[in-house]
Order: sequence, then C-alpha cells, then structure tokens
Amino acid sequence: MEFLINPKLEEYLENLSIEEGPIVLEMEKYAKEKDFPIIGREGGRLLYLLTRLKNPHLVVEIGSGFGYSAYWFAKGLKNGKVVLIDYQKKNINLAKEFFSKADLLDKAEFRVGDAIEIGQEYKNIDILFLDLEKAKYMKAIKTLEKNLSPDGIVIADNILFQGKVLFEPENKKAKILNQFNKYMFENYFSVILPIRDGILVGIRR
Amino acid sequence: MEFLINPKLEEYLENLSIEEGPIVLEMEKYAKEKDFPIIGREGGRLLYLLTRLKNPHLVVEIGSGFGYSAYWFAKGLKNGKVVLIDYQKKNINLAKEFFSKADLLDKAEFRVGDAIEIGQEYKNIDILFLDLEKAKYMKAIKTLEKNLSPDGIVIADNILFQGKVLFEPENKKAKILNQFNKYMFENYFSVILPIRDGILVGIRR
Repeated sequence: MEFLINPKLEEYLENLSIEEGPIVLEMEKYAKEKDFPIIGREGGRLLYLLTRLKNPHLVVEIGSGFGYSAYWFAKGLKNGKVVLIDYQKKNINLAKEFFSKADLLDKAEFRVGDAIEIGQEYKNIDILFLDLEKAKYMKAIKTLEKNLSPDGIVIADNILFQGKVLFEPENKKAKILNQFNKYMFENYFSVILPIRDGILVGIRR
Repeated sequence: MEFLINPKLEEYLENLSIEEGPIVLEMEKYAKEKDFPIIGREGGRLLYLLTRLKNPHLVVEIGSGFGYSAYWFAKGLKNGKVVLIDYQKKNINLAKEFFSKADLLDKAEFRVGDAIEIGQEYKNIDILFLDLEKAKYMKAIKTLEKNLSPDGIVIADNILFQGKVLFEPENKKAKILNQFNKYMFENYFSVILPIRDGILVGIRR
C-alpha cells in the first residue's frame, strides 16, 4: 500500500507523544491484541485538544467501539458528557469497565443499538463524532445534522479509508467517503487532517 | 527531498478546498509570484477553524509577513482582534492594503518591529502564533508564554522545517525546532498536524 504520511513522520510523532495514563495504555494494548480498529494515539490527542478548545456540553459518538475515542473526549471535557453508542453490547460493557477504572463514569452515557437511530434522541449536539461502518457516513450526516447545535462541529474518522479514496477511487466504500468529503466541504467549513487515514473536522459556515 | 505527505493526498485536499474569496486568491497569487513563504490554503483553513472553535479575544502573530495567516484568523473572529507584527514595513503596509480590501481593518492591529519585543506588550493572549525565523522559536516561546491567557493556545508553523527535522536532524535550525517540539510536548498538551511542513498546536495542561 502507498503511504499517506511518511512513516518517519509517524514515528517522530509517536516518540513525542509520551503517555503515562495506565488506562489509555491498557486500551491501546487491547486494541493491538484484538486487532480492533481505534483512532490511535495521535487521533485521540487531537480529539482531546478539540474538546478543550470547543468546551462542549454534549458530545455524541456514532460508533464507539470499546471507548478509546470517548476516553479522549471525556478527558477533555470541563462540564458536559460524551454519549457512547455501539451496536455491540460487549464493546459497551468493556467501555464501561475502562471508564470506571479511569474514574470517568460521571462524564459518560452508554447506549447499545443502532447508532444513527439512537443518535437522533440527542438535540444540540456540540460535537458529533462519526466512526461507524463507512458505507453509512452519508446517511449518518444527513440524518443527524439537524441535531447539531448552531456552532456544532462534526468530526469523522477514516475519511480516506486506508487511502482507498485516493488510490482505489472506484471502490464502493471509497466512493461513499469521497461523496461524504465533498458534502462536508460544500455544506460546512471543513479541513482534513492527515492523521492515520484522515480525520475530517467540519463546522457550520 | 523525501515527502512528508503523499502528493496525491495534498492534491486531493487542494481540490476539495475551493476558495472564492478574491482577496485570499490575490494574496496567494502574490505569494507565488514573489516566492514568499505562507502557511498555505490548508494551513489557513486550519487557523480559521481553530479560531472559530476557540473564539479568542486576542490573537498575536509573531511574524506576519504580508498578512496571509492573519487574514484567516480575522475571518474566524467573532469579537476580538489579531495583532500583526513583522519587522518589514513593506510587508505590514501590504497587509494593511489586503485587510482594507477585505474589509477586515476593524479586526486587526498592525505593528512594525522586532516581533518578540513587541509581542511582550500584549497580555492575556488567547492564540499566540509563531511564524518567525526558525532559530528564534525557543526564544519566542520562552519569552512570550507568560503572556498567554490561562486557556491560551500556541500555534507554530513549519515545525518540521521542510522535513529537515526528520531527514537532516543535525541541521542547526532543525535542532532548534526539534528542541522546540520537545518543549511543547513536555510543557503543553500538543499535537503536530501534518500540513505542509508541520503545524503544532499546543494548549496548557
């Protein structure tokens, strides 16, 4: 596979981002062992930073896995909460365990089920985080954008789909993500940050 | 030169970031013609987005050139102002012209002189932007960090120095930037965004 970012740069960043938090290290170990896709250290740090800047009341995650991204959101929150949603009960139970150990339970709400369905229950979302099945990104934004707060932002992970958006543009999911990216640049003010396979951050114009 | 980011990715982002603003296009044209280094379209868009998220009262630029980065800060401001500082009167005069044409003069203050000296006059800086002579990055942060507001952030451009920080680590300026990056990761919560030759964003822990 062609690389998006020079591996030497990724290594440099990794060496700078020393992490002492035992829970985040445990989560990363779990992801590695189970080959569970997570946003990664650099992505997680970005979520933390954006949360500190934005100071949101409500973060809603569409696709939480076992809570790695939610951990970074929760760490960045002053007041407010992050809603974790995943269709697998096993993942959410694991997230609860990690949040309990990290003493972050008071900053989180845990839901099991269809994330796009459940997401609609929340109004005035300050940060909407999309990390679900790639084929559903367009459906997710179209369904949930009405629930964003006036200054709300959208953060979407994997928007280059392992680089396939660039190198295999005819791939079915790559096409949907390309469509999603275009939508986000036309209807929001967006940037794509070259972290792993791309994180998009968009704000209403 | 080895590349930091895949050129195909840079091209993809460029095609997404359609810009209609006549002044920003004029500034980019000027930069290209004069081979004047600017933060670029993607970098500028990031500054705008961070400004929207942060909603700062005071942005101080240490090294403004002819005002390209300041344009994006000013565009993102609700209230508050951006202070442009450059040692070349010619640059600042040009910035004034661009700001006048873009109807942004009420959001800006223009200063000519030693940016580190002049920067110290401003207290409670919400965003400190460093884009000066690379050898002076450590001096700049050490001198000016006491003037940051409690939740203030630091944004620094070119922190990989055209990749030399990775590929020519013994280069004198690369060494200083490497030292700066380490300082910013140890004393702030920082991320490096792989845009052009690296933009660092750091917030107090």
